[in-house]
Amino acid sequence: MAHGGGGKLMHQLIGKMFLPAFRNSLSEAQHDASVFEIGGQRLALTTDSFVVRPLFFPGGDLGSLAVHGTVNDLAMAGARPLYLSAAFIIEEGLPMDTLWRLVSSMQQAASKAGVQIITGDTKVVDKGKGDGVFINTAGVGIINHSLKILPQSIRPGDAILVNGDLGRHGMAIMAVREGLEFESTIESDSAPVAGAVMALLEAGINVHCLRDLTRGGLTSVLNEIAEAAGLTLQVDERLIPVREDVRAACEILGLDPFHVACEGRFAIFVPEVEVERALSVLRANTEGTTPCRIGTVTDQAVPKVLLKNMIGAQRILDMAIGEQLPRIC
Amino acid sequence: MAHGGGGKLMHQLIGKMFLPAFRNSLSEAQHDASVFEIGGQRLALTTDSFVVRPLFFPGGDLGSLAVHGTVNDLAMAGARPLYLSAAFIIEEGLPMDTLWRLVSSMQQAASKAGVQIITGDTKVVDKGKGDGVFINTAGVGIINHSLKILPQSIRPGDAILVNGDLGRHGMAIMAVREGLEFESTIESDSAPVAGAVMALLEAGINVHCLRDLTRGGLTSVLNEIAEAAGLTLQVDERLIPVREDVRAACEILGLDPFHVACEGRFAIFVPEVEVERALSVLRANTEGTTPCRIGTVTDQAVPKVLLKNMIGAQRILDMAIGEQLPRIC
Repeated sequence: MAHGGGGKLMHQLIGKMFLPAFRNSLSEAQHDASVFEIGGQRLALTTDSFVVRPLFFPGGDLGSLAVHGTVNDLAMAGARPLYLSAAFIIEEGLPMDTLWRLVSSMQQAASKAGVQIITGDTKVVDKGKGDGVFINTAGVGIINHSLKILPQSIRPGDAILVNGDLGRHGMAIMAVREGLEFESTIESDSAPVAGAVMALLEAGINVHCLRDLTRGGLTSVLNEIAEAAGLTLQVDERLIPVREDVRAACEILGLDPFHVACEGRFAIFVPEVEVERALSVLRANTEGTTPCRIGTVTDQAVPKVLLKNMIGAQRILDMAIGEQLPRIC
Repeated sequence: MAHGGGGKLMHQLIGKMFLPAFRNSLSEAQHDASVFEIGGQRLALTTDSFVVRPLFFPGGDLGSLAVHGTVNDLAMAGARPLYLSAAFIIEEGLPMDTLWRLVSSMQQAASKAGVQIITGDTKVVDKGKGDGVFINTAGVGIINHSLKILPQSIRPGDAILVNGDLGRHGMAIMAVREGLEFESTIESDSAPVAGAVMALLEAGINVHCLRDLTRGGLTSVLNEIAEAAGLTLQVDERLIPVREDVRAACEILGLDPFHVACEGRFAIFVPEVEVERALSVLRANTEGTTPCRIGTVTDQAVPKVLLKNMIGAQRILDMAIGEQLPRIC
């Protein structure tokens, strides 16, 4: 299980098995989506399987999540999402009504995100050989700018922004699983962020890197990027937005909110001079939360992620070893 | 289970749920791959999940099958397969060695088929919530011709060809599952057919429709095409190639070889005048079996598939209702 949690073990599995096997110039970039060129046009391809339980949770469901996840992965490559595929692995005995609700939710999410689901597949496996339903989506997007949105484009002095408060998706799921009740229900942050990304690009912001804060949360993402860029990322705990109810739920379950997956949040790396303009574009294209700056890129001998905590002390923010939250997406 | 077998129930599930929900001009064509246009260039997108058991079988494995399936689906739209994604849903406890063998096999199959696996995803589910491993592949291909390769392009008088003998893949799997032993092992026909399709197109053959004979076998494919084209397809049992060992295995298990899935076989619809040239191109690009003609398209009041049997009598070849062979691909 630990190999799927987005932490160090998954990182090793991908690094030691998949990358060497499928080694080619395109997959070496290790990004959420791969970029390729056809007839002089840059396109992006990405895929994700969604195995989250429960199928329906406050703020979303497996169907909308499967659309948001792939739309967002394309956006993280700076691509405008266009076409999606949808493949269902259904466990024998899944009520037709459940499938119908998920399919309807996917269609609504696709429509809202401005993408079309154009091809699909259905497989049915024996009872006990699946878990209700798994959904895979793959997506194709078009890249209409000349930026190289990659960890390798990050420079010392770049600002690190996030588009909103962290951890709502993971804690919405965990609260249901653990039967936690709060005064208000924590709703997942699952949402498409391609609109905000397209707005940044259309405003001509010099975006260096984008990454959505999914499996492994902020901590994994920052560590992966620090390693890929060969730079140190310094973030300030006091600047990282986490809602009080999410923080409380994390405390009860002994979880670190910086490790918890989001599905509608992403990190943005831009040069210092672009910060104000980027934040203003993000704020104009974000609902229900407030984009902000959380840190700065620096150059140090050994690339790492440094966290300045509440009392001002600095510590290394290391990747989680195994799974902290399995099957959250 | 029956809804996944490629027969009438699956046909209804797709027709009644997925098509209405995802209705758009692109998905209405109901083909193995969907065709779209970006910057004046026609491209194809397809997806397939592979859940076959056992993971390793004579002539192939889940990994190579996952590559062949998607490569072939792109080829059936007349697209040259270029880029694939690969997504793994791994059940907790799968031996790393098993995963490694599958990944290596995928890479070999991709290399042989001339495609690159450029992006991927890994999810791990709890023991008992999966079945070893499921693999999803999606693929993008490029269309470099102006033909409309669709059931709707078929005309009365067209010849129906197949690129080789039927049923080997399904019976290779069933023989392992049922513990059948024959003098020689039946090996799966799993193979990429994109090379043969590209050769047909490069030779300028006026191809009207292509369809691979996977789930539901020849019978389902012919019925789907007859319905979509609004025409009757007449095939002659004496012309349909089925090897003796496959026929014997089918008889033992009470199966109809025309319902059994292949993974390296496809049907080709071409005008009568193109038959000889098409067969000669196919033969030059096919290994280990012999392409041939099996029937003709005719125009009748009610579209259907007619089979002339061994003694010359004609009967309707109807789609199987449920699953004849579950989890064969």
